[in-house]
Amino acid sequence: MRPTKILKTGIVQHTFSPEIEVNRNRNIAAIERLADEGAQLVVLSELHDSLYFCQTEDVANFELACRPEEEFTEIYSQAAADNKVVIVASAFERRAPGLYHNTALVFDSDGSTAGKYRKMHIPDDPGFYEKFYFAPGDLGFRPIDTSIGKLGVLVCWDQWYPEAARIMALRGAEMLIYPTAIGWNPDDTPEEKARQREAWITIQRSHAVANGVSVVSVNRFGFEDDPSGQTSGIDFWGSSFVAGPQGEMLLTAPDDAPFEGVADIDLERTQEVRHWWPYLRDRRIDAYGDLLHRFID
Amino acid sequence: MRPTKILKTGIVQHTFSPEIEVNRNRNIAAIERLADEGAQLVVLSELHDSLYFCQTEDVANFELACRPEEEFTEIYSQAAADNKVVIVASAFERRAPGLYHNTALVFDSDGSTAGKYRKMHIPDDPGFYEKFYFAPGDLGFRPIDTSIGKLGVLVCWDQWYPEAARIMALRGAEMLIYPTAIGWNPDDTPEEKARQREAWITIQRSHAVANGVSVVSVNRFGFEDDPSGQTSGIDFWGSSFVAGPQGEMLLTAPDDAPFEGVADIDLERTQEVRHWWPYLRDRRIDAYGDLLHRFID
Repeated sequence: MRPTKILKTGIVQHTFSPEIEVNRNRNIAAIERLADEGAQLVVLSELHDSLYFCQTEDVANFELACRPEEEFTEIYSQAAADNKVVIVASAFERRAPGLYHNTALVFDSDGSTAGKYRKMHIPDDPGFYEKFYFAPGDLGFRPIDTSIGKLGVLVCWDQWYPEAARIMALRGAEMLIYPTAIGWNPDDTPEEKARQREAWITIQRSHAVANGVSVVSVNRFGFEDDPSGQTSGIDFWGSSFVAGPQGEMLLTAPDDAPFEGVADIDLERTQEVRHWWPYLRDRRIDAYGDLLHRFID
Repeated sequence: MRPTKILKTGIVQHTFSPEIEVNRNRNIAAIERLADEGAQLVVLSELHDSLYFCQTEDVANFELACRPEEEFTEIYSQAAADNKVVIVASAFERRAPGLYHNTALVFDSDGSTAGKYRKMHIPDDPGFYEKFYFAPGDLGFRPIDTSIGKLGVLVCWDQWYPEAARIMALRGAEMLIYPTAIGWNPDDTPEEKARQREAWITIQRSHAVANGVSVVSVNRFGFEDDPSGQTSGIDFWGSSFVAGPQGEMLLTAPDDAPFEGVADIDLERTQEVRHWWPYLRDRRIDAYGDLLHRFID
């Protein structure tokens, strides 16, 4: 028998309230439920303590930020310890006056802070004004060591970049994890919506395939209004999923409802799949220098 | 109205005979048919002049190689000129005694040789003993300029490497093209076969998504015996396809039959999609240095 190392992974695809307290209580309750189902790891979606405030550029929203060392960490590290689960949480980090990041924090199952990742690729699109709020991450692409393995935690827009996934894998990540906040412009056609959602699933599954690791992607769900009234708001499309190291789907959440669920990820399967598909062996590192250029004109 | 630049792209998914003459005649006939249907570009599958000889390591097979300057080029450049189409062909290149490559050759619609690409990533798996036959390419990842645009031609195993696709895009490729030879071990379970085929489609569609360019992948079709009897041979799974720059499928060939067909690729759509999804803008070229390492221990 092939050895197995099953990691029970819980995902939380929620809608959000304007009240931080309400969101936190819902998140904690979901973590408890998933732990009761046996989850050893729980992944929350991006910026799960608030509405997705980046729909407008408003300095008042900097009030939503927190020092991760303070209340945010108290609450989620306590939840990790109480439920003996590893938690991947997503914070609006206040680092210094006028300096903020979109930061994933990982709490180990004893409540200690295992590490953090500051979102490296920052989007800026109508309705997703993240360059206004978040400085690009300066911690690089480094897996976070936990009691359950080395977690390649990335955030949302990073998911479109094969480079980020690859570097995490080269640094020994045993799986990739994407808290995310992506949705439709309600005015788009059904065909355009389908293309966007499918592209989003495809690119993330491809990171599993290219690197022979599992991928966990957890998205927000539901409609959030644009307070400025300039756009029609965002329909966060849910569709969270867990894929195995061949890109095979292990768990898929709906695009039209909240969802909580647990997937069995076999971390030993990475070794098996990489024996069959030894892509790392054949990389042409002598010929990849162009990747460090913006463009080659 | 948005400008369009439609490129009619023909794909040839064939079975193969032990007779080179037979294969060449079939290929030429297919090129003629597709040109009659309006194709401006025709893509053949990998090593389309012979059986897939890499199922065994046999020095006798070096006899199958050719100098691309000689007969191979005469035949396919004539076909290009006769039919006024650009042809992406795939040759077993004899470069010097004991030095061979797996080389894609592009013939422009006037019969001139537009350029060549030597397969950079060389696989070696049971039944795919390519490291025995082919030296790794030494021409880098450079698009080939033709009268219909800059073609990012890569070959088979390259398709698993996001790095190759990215560099082609950074060097201005307007589309990606993969002649390929991939199939199932007939002994694998239906579930494993499905995972492999789906992973292969997923990774290539992801290159379209990540880079905002169309992707053309043309695979061999049908069963080819292992002359050594060591394996159960290869069931080449066809499934050739053309995807647009959001990864949307424009043309899909079956996995259980030969196929010829023409897809309309709108090369101007790349600009539109990259306006919506400006991934090139946000690449963290300051933080990608690790990509040039084999592994970071």
